[in-house]
Amino acid sequence: MTNIESPQWKELADIKDELAVRDWFMGTSGNLSIRITEQPVAFLVTASGKDKRKRTSEDFLLVNGQGEKAEATHLKPSAETLLHCEIYNRTSAGCSLHVHTVANNVISELYGDQGSITFQGQELIKAFDYWEEDAALTIPIIKNDADIPTLAESFSRFVNEDSGAVLIRNHGITVWGKNALEAKKRLEAAEFLFQYHLTLQSLRTSPSVIQRTTY
Amino acid sequence: MTNIESPQWKELADIKDELAVRDWFMGTSGNLSIRITEQPVAFLVTASGKDKRKRTSEDFLLVNGQGEKAEATHLKPSAETLLHCEIYNRTSAGCSLHVHTVANNVISELYGDQGSITFQGQELIKAFDYWEEDAALTIPIIKNDADIPTLAESFSRFVNEDSGAVLIRNHGITVWGKNALEAKKRLEAAEFLFQYHLTLQSLRTSPSVIQRTTY
Amino acid sequence: MTNIESPQWKELADIKDELAVRDWFMGTSGNLSIRITEQPVAFLVTASGKDKRKRTSEDFLLVNGQGEKAEATHLKPSAETLLHCEIYNRTSAGCSLHVHTVANNVISELYGDQGSITFQGQELIKAFDYWEEDAALTIPIIKNDADIPTLAESFSRFVNEDSGAVLIRNHGITVWGKNALEAKKRLEAAEFLFQYHLTLQSLRTSPSVIQRTTY
Amino acid sequence: MTNIESPQWKELADIKDELAVRDWFMGTSGNLSIRITEQPVAFLVTASGKDKRKRTSEDFLLVNGQGEKAEATHLKPSAETLLHCEIYNRTSAGCSLHVHTVANNVISELYGDQGSITFQGQELIKAFDYWEEDAALTIPIIKNDADIPTLAESFSRFVNEDSGAVLIRNHGITVWGKNALEAKKRLEAAEFLFQYHLTLQSLRTSPSVIQRTTY
Repeated sequence: MTNIESPQWKELADIKDELAVRDWFMGTSGNLSIRITEQPVAFLVTASGKDKRKRTSEDFLLVNGQGEKAEATHLKPSAETLLHCEIYNRTSAGCSLHVHTVANNVISELYGDQGSITFQGQELIKAFDYWEEDAALTIPIIKNDADIPTLAESFSRFVNEDSGAVLIRNHGITVWGKNALEAKKRLEAAEFLFQYHLTLQSLRTSPSVIQRTTY
Repeated sequence: MTNIESPQWKELADIKDELAVRDWFMGTSGNLSIRITEQPVAFLVTASGKDKRKRTSEDFLLVNGQGEKAEATHLKPSAETLLHCEIYNRTSAGCSLHVHTVANNVISELYGDQGSITFQGQELIKAFDYWEEDAALTIPIIKNDADIPTLAESFSRFVNEDSGAVLIRNHGITVWGKNALEAKKRLEAAEFLFQYHLTLQSLRTSPSVIQRTTY
Repeated sequence: MTNIESPQWKELADIKDELAVRDWFMGTSGNLSIRITEQPVAFLVTASGKDKRKRTSEDFLLVNGQGEKAEATHLKPSAETLLHCEIYNRTSAGCSLHVHTVANNVISELYGDQGSITFQGQELIKAFDYWEEDAALTIPIIKNDADIPTLAESFSRFVNEDSGAVLIRNHGITVWGKNALEAKKRLEAAEFLFQYHLTLQSLRTSPSVIQRTTY
Repeated sequence: MTNIESPQWKELADIKDELAVRDWFMGTSGNLSIRITEQPVAFLVTASGKDKRKRTSEDFLLVNGQGEKAEATHLKPSAETLLHCEIYNRTSAGCSLHVHTVANNVISELYGDQGSITFQGQELIKAFDYWEEDAALTIPIIKNDADIPTLAESFSRFVNEDSGAVLIRNHGITVWGKNALEAKKRLEAAEFLFQYHLTLQSLRTSPSVIQRTTY
């Protein structure tokens, strides 16, 4: 049975609190999970329909690798639990985070037609373990689908390693990592890069304007 | 008499705290209510002129379906209580939230002449219980009127269901739902969609600029 | 002697905490005051060089209508205390708030040459006690001057009533009111109007772009 | 050995908390230090790979002027400790702060080719101890280098005084000061100036648009 005193529960609840303060779960969107056992797969996932601004003993429930309840509970797993299953079944990842932000949704729309966005020449790329000076980080962008099994299938094509990130068009980002801190680190770095890029795009870049810093 | 220990009081006070932290009540703007009885209509509404950043026993008072005090108190109901009355008299809604944000006011100005704004192809539309892939969410925008009974009358034309949302031009948004969590969920989803749309509009969309993500 | 248990001290300290959380005192900028006695004028003002993110017994000191210390203390009054003196000497105002925000500095630069900015048709104008539908709120913008007595003199030309607001070019806004809540209310409403205006200006307004809300 | 009860530890931990709340350490980026002894140089620096949102007894460790551990510990100093060494070896500075913000990275990219950015006519310049009305603040922008000793060498060319600020292209800002409060003051003032400048640049400045403030 789920132990709400376990380190994994506490770690996931702490991340939920932190992301909630940033308004990364607007409109009860978003879902989070943390692995409990490697084989057979079992993980804690956010219960459906909860207010993520509050911290309660009903925030998460235990599910198996098919996304079915693995404990007796009235709670329902998040509607998008199947995406988390793909991650835990295909890799050894320890944590997966799915959030909607204005920046990640705008990026997913602007670059959705080209199927991915690539960042290069940014120090923050190191959060994704790229250490060479000319390293490039590519985040795939997949089509959104109202049918979750169909969406999970498109998503699974990009789930090959223990950490990664996938944008779903106008449906937020899913980031996973070997453990909770790595997943959060990559999520934050991706959001930073998105905000950076959008800010730069919103500026006029004609040199005459740019060089005026005397008021 | 009003019971400040009641679950409804606490629920409304929690929402007030949460929206206050986001600066959604700038300049003492905004007002909130929660239903106490179905018939005859009675609800708690924010008292006029209070600092919504503080949590006190004078934050709300009980009023009836005509917006009159339903308890002995020196407090005055919010000047816009009549809009909340329209909601509780015409529907079975349980909670109503009115806030000013920069994004909702800008949207109301940009689209005020066309009388509404429609969103489609956004995952967050699901917060409004639209589940089909091609569903469209339309939020009406009404003219502001300094005379509250006149404003309440224009507003009432859009109050037909237990949940809904109406923008008032340069005067914020009013969102209601079956209960407090549903009202808050829809308010957050609407604000997310407004911010998303404004961010996208502020960007240059010439392909040559958009595709430059190497720095 | 200053009583740090007095209601005025507490009220000013609460406002300081609230504005500090919003980052309205970046780089130790900004200063605040609250009146203690009407005649002779005495008020509490922020001490110079303090970290406004911390709440201590040395945050404020008592000064007279000439801005001189009115108690034995090693603390120095804020360098801009003379502007607060103008307010308390010329009116019956109870509180004065000076803050730098990105929005108020940008507005002061964009409209500095024309000497003022006027808002009309915004519900938030009511925070300034304008209740008519076609009311207009004008906020003067004065030239900044490194010499504080010179700056105080330009400022004093706009200090005629118990509440008001003046922008100083690239030097923030000063808002005052009959009491602390009124001063804060007007400050927040002004900042909301500034942010609203800047957001609207940053958008492309070509109709073809504006009407695209389907993604 | 490091004393986590010392005033310096507490001061650095407080600054870390404050900057963390602002999201200035996204993706575990950023590093901070505070001097313990003048000669031989010893300072506390952030340990590598920690979650800066949490406050623990393993957040900092003591290092010497070569960036080597000066205490028995399993902790590793931040990968960029050599930049802090340059500051403490070359000056009498007491504190150094390195953070990534969207604004500082965008500024570093926009002005990187010209090697610096200059601000003039802004009240906030006073945070850098420029008091004359026509004073100009210039912040150098250096090329980023994945090799930290090479980066530290380029950086050192601008480390001549007890306080200062250097932007590293797409790699944040490093600010130092005589003490922790001065370093934080300058960091905040620099970020304010960056945000101010970017906001102004993002606006259309055609007079016909600018003067429309009636809605």
